[in-house]
Amino acid sequence: MSNEKITKQSEDFSEWYNQVILRAELADYAPVRGCMVVRPYGWAIWENIQKTLDARFKETGHVNAAFPMLIPKSFMEKEKEHVEGFSPELAVVTIGGGEVLEEPLVVRPTSETIIGHMYAKWIQSYRDLPVLINQWANVVRWEMRTRLFLRTLEFYWQEGHTAHETSEEAEEETLRMLNVYADFAINEAAVPVITGRKSDSERFAGAVRTYSIEGMMKDTRALQSGTSHNLGQNFAKAFNIQFLDRNNELQHCWTTSWGLSTRFIGAIIMTHGDDQGLILPPRLAPLQVIIIPIYRSDDEKEKVLAEAKKVESRLSKFRCKLDNRAEMTPGFKFNDWELRGVPLRIEIGPKDIDNKSVMAARRDIPGKAGKSSIAIDNLEGEVGNLLDTIQKNLLNKATEFRTSHTYEPASYEELKEAVNKGWALSPWCGSTECEAKVKEDTKATTRCIPLEQKSHSGKCIICGTPAKESVIFARAY
Amino acid sequence: MSNEKITKQSEDFSEWYNQVILRAELADYAPVRGCMVVRPYGWAIWENIQKTLDARFKETGHVNAAFPMLIPKSFMEKEKEHVEGFSPELAVVTIGGGEVLEEPLVVRPTSETIIGHMYAKWIQSYRDLPVLINQWANVVRWEMRTRLFLRTLEFYWQEGHTAHETSEEAEEETLRMLNVYADFAINEAAVPVITGRKSDSERFAGAVRTYSIEGMMKDTRALQSGTSHNLGQNFAKAFNIQFLDRNNELQHCWTTSWGLSTRFIGAIIMTHGDDQGLILPPRLAPLQVIIIPIYRSDDEKEKVLAEAKKVESRLSKFRCKLDNRAEMTPGFKFNDWELRGVPLRIEIGPKDIDNKSVMAARRDIPGKAGKSSIAIDNLEGEVGNLLDTIQKNLLNKATEFRTSHTYEPASYEELKEAVNKGWALSPWCGSTECEAKVKEDTKATTRCIPLEQKSHSGKCIICGTPAKESVIFARAY
Repeated sequence: MSNEKITKQSEDFSEWYNQVILRAELADYAPVRGCMVVRPYGWAIWENIQKTLDARFKETGHVNAAFPMLIPKSFMEKEKEHVEGFSPELAVVTIGGGEVLEEPLVVRPTSETIIGHMYAKWIQSYRDLPVLINQWANVVRWEMRTRLFLRTLEFYWQEGHTAHETSEEAEEETLRMLNVYADFAINEAAVPVITGRKSDSERFAGAVRTYSIEGMMKDTRALQSGTSHNLGQNFAKAFNIQFLDRNNELQHCWTTSWGLSTRFIGAIIMTHGDDQGLILPPRLAPLQVIIIPIYRSDDEKEKVLAEAKKVESRLSKFRCKLDNRAEMTPGFKFNDWELRGVPLRIEIGPKDIDNKSVMAARRDIPGKAGKSSIAIDNLEGEVGNLLDTIQKNLLNKATEFRTSHTYEPASYEELKEAVNKGWALSPWCGSTECEAKVKEDTKATTRCIPLEQKSHSGKCIICGTPAKESVIFARAY
Repeated sequence: MSNEKITKQSEDFSEWYNQVILRAELADYAPVRGCMVVRPYGWAIWENIQKTLDARFKETGHVNAAFPMLIPKSFMEKEKEHVEGFSPELAVVTIGGGEVLEEPLVVRPTSETIIGHMYAKWIQSYRDLPVLINQWANVVRWEMRTRLFLRTLEFYWQEGHTAHETSEEAEEETLRMLNVYADFAINEAAVPVITGRKSDSERFAGAVRTYSIEGMMKDTRALQSGTSHNLGQNFAKAFNIQFLDRNNELQHCWTTSWGLSTRFIGAIIMTHGDDQGLILPPRLAPLQVIIIPIYRSDDEKEKVLAEAKKVESRLSKFRCKLDNRAEMTPGFKFNDWELRGVPLRIEIGPKDIDNKSVMAARRDIPGKAGKSSIAIDNLEGEVGNLLDTIQKNLLNKATEFRTSHTYEPASYEELKEAVNKGWALSPWCGSTECEAKVKEDTKATTRCIPLEQKSHSGKCIICGTPAKESVIFARAY
């Protein structure tokens, strides 16, 4: 652990990102290309994400299960679009117990196929529906260019897989879970995502309709942060998931799937972080409050540490820790915990004790402006209020940033400029050709067609033909 | 879901075991040989195990992380005993992204090697020690003969991996975690395990000393239900995990590892279950209380369902559910929830409502003996008491069963009889030859040398030479 400065965001955002992750000990590179080790501090964020998402899944009637990681290769080939989308990315087990396998097994890149196979076995009648199952799992996709959290060979996620009686119910479920993701992102992670529908070219391989939540990172690039797919009857037909309906007729189910991964930790880092390091939203931060004792003499040390311990125990309902490492200066500790993004720092020195107060320093507002003295009598209440305020402020700042970097260009020329400095929200005819032209000219892709549409010119910004909907064009991770 | 009788334990214990798992929907066979799907009801047991174990790990200072599942094959070959123990069981990824890999990757059978590699990178000084990390993960071992939960190709577990300054600290940690397992097994799962040390031939591949918890199943066979390993400096030397000690000298760390897996669900099933199906200990049961409404007419139905809903909401602090399925009779429901092992059933009929009471039926005591009427005024308290009583009774019954099936044979002839009807606790000289002779003659193996030793003859029951310790001989899963 060192106390050197990290690269500034404005100098090299990508380098800033890597340094923050390594220095804050969120993750490390593994000895296998493209794989990561999620270190305890990073995993604690994921555990907090899991807790709050899992509660939302259970509230909406879902249960957890565990399906095998190894899938017969032939399963991947049953759904036409799915095989095209995933075959180039597969890790394949060809040897087991010292012998070459008759049929190779793929390490799951996603589990529609094996879960589809089991659903076909379990579902007989409309009485068995809906089936609403989620799993927390690791998956492997053989990516060429990898980045910690954003794109790694192995990553961690949850994948929900549901089966329904009707097309309407499946669409309802798809949107319900999209909204669960948005609610989580906005209210727990303070990441103000936009919900929308993906274009055909950005659809999940095998889906009828894909929806996503999209966040704007501090370099203005978009990050797809969670997806929800209406799979129609595609997988039900490929895997014979059939049921006797209320008229005693055999029908194919309507299925959905939806996932959110450790990539979301990348979204948190790049939405809130600054040149000092991470800034974690209080609701997901592994540590919400760090207490730093400040003393000069041994006499002071004893007195201050005793008081600091009292403060720590009074704050036990928060995720709170006293940093009593003797070998480091307060200044070193300030930098260290700022790098790690702890939302609130509490300083206690001899003067504070005399004044029956402590000093609180907000991570979201640097320097003196973020500091305030708290009367020791009001400690718990004030700390709770400050954490709430920080949570809200992070959401507000990120929302303002996105708003001020989202443009509605009046012409294609303006669009080309807009995607260099933010997002462009523009009417679009819906054609793959226009989408491809923007990509070629600017590297920006369609991120999503926001569910909430504003009024617009009615003409495609690229080709001028009639346009029903507006889409977000942006450079994306 | 059917309501047919399952095979009796006395007829075919193994068949009983499989039927209970499939019919109670704990797990199902996957399309890949030897793999299982853990269904929602089974996974809910695992989630309860995870919660209570994870809390114990955190109380003892451990943190969670996630290490990659794919390990370079060469890593497996660095520790001599480890490679011998695990090579025959490896699943190997040879193709990634459509190309043959330069170095094959193994799917982790356990993670000492890759974690050792990372620890070597992270640990520099005694100040970095101890490192106390756990991970909840899936692992793959290419087993030939598989059984749901007990031995599957892929299984779920936690694996703790720690690094220490001294041999003493490592031994202390190894025993601490063994005791955490025993405490969990006894007080949460009501599985009265014995803690002990493994013989050399049963040691973990690469360990200096292996300890285990061993439970007696209802067929009197032993099930190793969790292990804790003192790895000495074996892995530290193989992976160069070194630190500068307090005298500024370079030393190898002392490491440990310990694991408990979904196999433990098998222990719960086979410790408590009966001919009606599962019996789940209240502290781990996904459902603690099932409420069954009983009515004949539509009038009664309305009245009873209204009361049943009130009871359900009053019992919301328990894991409780009202079974209001209209298409099934109460009798069907009784059998169904008995099969699934719900510890307490509450029946509500018109007469109970008139009497201001409900009928409670304990799963652990069949028939009338387990039934009692509870005054509605005392509902929450009585239900809580009954669940506590059931939990204790399960532990007592299992402890009595083990005690009455544990023999202290006076001769080798008696030992051979003893292991056919239970466990034999006998003094043993410690030689691999005597161990092998017992195995050849009886199929029984040494399970563990109990930490708590009783006085004994001082002579090996097999060869008659001096014996310091007693060991448990038993047929094992």
